[in-house]
Amino acid sequence: MQTQAILLASRPSGAPSADNFRFETRDVPAPTSGQVLLKTRYVSVDPYMRGRMSDAKSYIAPFVVGEPISGGVVAEVVESQVEQLPVGTLVTGNLPWQQYSVAEGNALQPIPAGAAPASYYLGLLGMPGLTAYFGLLDICQPAPGETVVVSGAAGAVGLIVGQLAKIKGARVVGTAGSDEKVAYLQELGFDVAINYKTANLPEALATAAPNGVDCYFDNVGGAITDAVYDLLNKHARIALCGQISSYNATEAPVGPRPEGKLLKTSAKLQGFIVSDYLPQWPTGVQQLSEWYQQGKLRTEETITEGFEQIPAAFLGLFKGENTGKAIVKVA
Amino acid sequence: MQTQAILLASRPSGAPSADNFRFETRDVPAPTSGQVLLKTRYVSVDPYMRGRMSDAKSYIAPFVVGEPISGGVVAEVVESQVEQLPVGTLVTGNLPWQQYSVAEGNALQPIPAGAAPASYYLGLLGMPGLTAYFGLLDICQPAPGETVVVSGAAGAVGLIVGQLAKIKGARVVGTAGSDEKVAYLQELGFDVAINYKTANLPEALATAAPNGVDCYFDNVGGAITDAVYDLLNKHARIALCGQISSYNATEAPVGPRPEGKLLKTSAKLQGFIVSDYLPQWPTGVQQLSEWYQQGKLRTEETITEGFEQIPAAFLGLFKGENTGKAIVKVA
Repeated sequence: MQTQAILLASRPSGAPSADNFRFETRDVPAPTSGQVLLKTRYVSVDPYMRGRMSDAKSYIAPFVVGEPISGGVVAEVVESQVEQLPVGTLVTGNLPWQQYSVAEGNALQPIPAGAAPASYYLGLLGMPGLTAYFGLLDICQPAPGETVVVSGAAGAVGLIVGQLAKIKGARVVGTAGSDEKVAYLQELGFDVAINYKTANLPEALATAAPNGVDCYFDNVGGAITDAVYDLLNKHARIALCGQISSYNATEAPVGPRPEGKLLKTSAKLQGFIVSDYLPQWPTGVQQLSEWYQQGKLRTEETITEGFEQIPAAFLGLFKGENTGKAIVKVA
Repeated sequence: MQTQAILLASRPSGAPSADNFRFETRDVPAPTSGQVLLKTRYVSVDPYMRGRMSDAKSYIAPFVVGEPISGGVVAEVVESQVEQLPVGTLVTGNLPWQQYSVAEGNALQPIPAGAAPASYYLGLLGMPGLTAYFGLLDICQPAPGETVVVSGAAGAVGLIVGQLAKIKGARVVGTAGSDEKVAYLQELGFDVAINYKTANLPEALATAAPNGVDCYFDNVGGAITDAVYDLLNKHARIALCGQISSYNATEAPVGPRPEGKLLKTSAKLQGFIVSDYLPQWPTGVQQLSEWYQQGKLRTEETITEGFEQIPAAFLGLFKGENTGKAIVKVA
């Protein structure tokens, strides 16, 4: 059979564009023993994928020019050579941007039926949820009454970070890029939400965190980070999760050196990627599911429809188009 | 009785100078119950004291204009109202820059007789030694075969860091500011020592650390740090101890933002001050003393003679005049 596939056509310099992607019809082989044929249902588009479009050394191998982009996908088994994955099973895995694909059964995780919408396994109960969970609870470890700041707070990871910090009894301050996002964060229970595009950031943050900042979960970097660093309390903990403000930079970003501020406060800054916590993923998913079922965690999705819309949904991440998890619903 | 005292005359803007200090004759009261009268023997001058000359918020209170500077001192008890500290006892403590002073007995640590030269309790077996000990062994935790870079390697803290890293079986690369210091570091057992003033730093570091950098103990900051960050291995650990390159800066230092590099490597950066480890100091001193007595740790002192030379010795720290611990011998 054949499938549409979305390939990396070229590596972007600066902001990626539709030109960096190419649609192609590809053959899909029949599944052999241990394999399944999958029909793609939901595709996850995530900021970290921008890094894979470049060939700079990073924590994850670059995409190959002329080959399909791959990432988090929810798919349905439509033909199976794996006893444990009968036809009709929904699974998640790291899969190519294709309408159909063949995969090894042991590289897939079946989705528990009925516990949550299937697409949540790309967000709240998937990679972004686990990123929030380990970054906040292992690195930042907020104590009750402490102040947590999260940048990119209305993104897939950020909105979970804020809710987890509230579960832990912290004061939560989030930054986001529109008044609509700010209103949503307030509705979610953030103590303060700041529109970084319209606020005087240093003043707004100082007002929002009158007792200083104990924990900072950084998805964004740049000027927001500079302002947060001026408010750090002694022994502050910083989970360095993303730097979306500089992903499309063509020159190394320059700014105030942070070391003096981190030194004066005996602060800890820990870079991480969710795969650092691979052995603990099952524990994380279980805890997140529990809080979700108890109504303590909510999420939001920005769902785009149609396989051909995947590149546009991805490009939208860098224009702040999504609130919560950006998902493409396929077929 | 009376004593000469050295006061903070004014706060420096940029590099401190002799004008920021003032000599004054002050009365010394007779010691009352629980107190001793001390005669100063050795005065420690340390880079961190530059921070206390400013009134910016920091981890330690600023010096007061018109009051004596204070810091690490070795002194001899010359009159005692404390049974455990008889006349003739040598002690260390945080004491004013005075020839004589009165202090509470319970704020002083007696120096064990004969174990090491008394001035070592201001260096190898004092604050700088403990700074090296906790920063390297608690934050960096170098494993055998890993590569450790230390900046300011010929300073009081740096030369101990390098030797401790060798004890732990690591490859040790140090940076220093003169060929004499480089030669001394090689003699101490550093695998590579680099004169950062004459070398092409990125190239020299890349050659010195062909397997990348696992641990970085930073006393200096600035361009050295920028070059080290380009070589970090996955899960690198950075002990942020000092930033002497910017202590005299009049504007906030600017440079390449480090977050992207720390994120890609899941690196940890931990600011610290030795007082963070106060409860563990006795353990640290004991271990350092043991290694010293076993001949596994050496130190070097740059000793200036004369009470009136204290400001000059302090100012010399920022001109790279000292190798190892800068000490002023008084009387």
